[in-house]
Amino acid sequence: MSKKPLILVTNDDGITAPGIRTLISVMNEIGDVVVVAPDSPQSAMGHAITINSTLHCNSIKIDNGPQKEYSCSGTPADCVKLGVNEILKRKPDICVSGINHGSNSSINVIYSGTMSAALEASIEGIPAIGFSLLDYRWDANFEAFRNSIKKITISALKEGIPKGNALNINFPKLKENEIKGIKICRQANAYWIEKFDKRKNPQGKEYYWLTGEFINEDNGTDSDEWALKNGYISVVPVKFDMTDHENIKKIKNWKL
Amino acid sequence: MSKKPLILVTNDDGITAPGIRTLISVMNEIGDVVVVAPDSPQSAMGHAITINSTLHCNSIKIDNGPQKEYSCSGTPADCVKLGVNEILKRKPDICVSGINHGSNSSINVIYSGTMSAALEASIEGIPAIGFSLLDYRWDANFEAFRNSIKKITISALKEGIPKGNALNINFPKLKENEIKGIKICRQANAYWIEKFDKRKNPQGKEYYWLTGEFINEDNGTDSDEWALKNGYISVVPVKFDMTDHENIKKIKNWKL
Repeated sequence: MSKKPLILVTNDDGITAPGIRTLISVMNEIGDVVVVAPDSPQSAMGHAITINSTLHCNSIKIDNGPQKEYSCSGTPADCVKLGVNEILKRKPDICVSGINHGSNSSINVIYSGTMSAALEASIEGIPAIGFSLLDYRWDANFEAFRNSIKKITISALKEGIPKGNALNINFPKLKENEIKGIKICRQANAYWIEKFDKRKNPQGKEYYWLTGEFINEDNGTDSDEWALKNGYISVVPVKFDMTDHENIKKIKNWKL
Repeated sequence: MSKKPLILVTNDDGITAPGIRTLISVMNEIGDVVVVAPDSPQSAMGHAITINSTLHCNSIKIDNGPQKEYSCSGTPADCVKLGVNEILKRKPDICVSGINHGSNSSINVIYSGTMSAALEASIEGIPAIGFSLLDYRWDANFEAFRNSIKKITISALKEGIPKGNALNINFPKLKENEIKGIKICRQANAYWIEKFDKRKNPQGKEYYWLTGEFINEDNGTDSDEWALKNGYISVVPVKFDMTDHENIKKIKNWKL
């Protein structure tokens, strides 16, 4: 029996995206890899799960690596649920998600399919990490981050990720020798100002495309946005307990 | 010009669901109501947003109330973005979401379209409340909670919801005279054990339905699950800063 760690790999850009292919290749150097990933892009799916329609899952072979792969019709969170409860014979030692094509720093974490997969794994008691690169291009340079991904994953396997947490890792768009290091950060207090691009279809009916401008008004040097802007890899421990414990007392004062 | 508060109403069960119809009717007693809600059920959509396809939005009239209504093709979070940035002439004074058909207590908050709409509003700086009833039935007794909804919404307008928070309100499945009161709580540490119901389609191909069992191992008397089980309405302040600030130090010790 293998003593290598069992690693579940998923993403939200779909099983053929270059980001996940790099992640799989790095994970093959660390452990036994099983991939359960969406059969189509699932970006910005947040923590959606599929309860009102059926799920399909097929064994698939994409490259010559030793990993086992399954392509699934659901969301990233569905893939983790299906992987852990139906496909894997035992609980994985770690779940890694990504590498996402585009940032999941600051408020983006809440819209992120990549991070919802990692959080789903952490809800199931599995150490989990989401990796994202600040480059939307399909041919982005994921190779530059192989060593960092390996180092962080091996550390997580050794040290253990705190219970209730998943790690949100973002890589700046830099070459390997330009990266200054790794910073453990908090989520920056940044947001999007939405702009709806209103158009008319050939029949004259109006429709919208959602676009927006990212605004960071957070001046702290301990945030993920600061780290990324200054050439560091950002690491944010993210938790699924969404209670604002500090504000319970304030609401109690309402005397409802 | 009206001095009444401007109220944005949305949900995840769709604009014709009985839950939102009750909520609209209560809000008409408090302020000027604009409804921007999904044209079809969007349960368990988490914080999904629509970036890879187009959005449609139509003015619609469903009943004889004074509210304005718009039916939207997107997710609950899309409805809030569209409502705030395209449809409303000024920032609403409050956004209310629901009443959801089914619980959004404890870990359900993370999968909830109802709460993602409320959180989206709070990200946009708007006080926001999500309401849910622990009864999945289409003909659930929403009327029992009219007074509580009114009281909580008026308090929120008066006191102001803390910045960065939305309120997650769940109602137990009880008659009005059976409700013991309102408890301000934390999210219970509960989870789902997934079960996949594997079936074969008429062509013999396998598919799955996601089902599960809800497990609450949290013995605290300050959790939402405790409150609901003991006949109280639960109120949890939920935040969109997902950083686990307490664990930043632990990860720093990894010396990455």
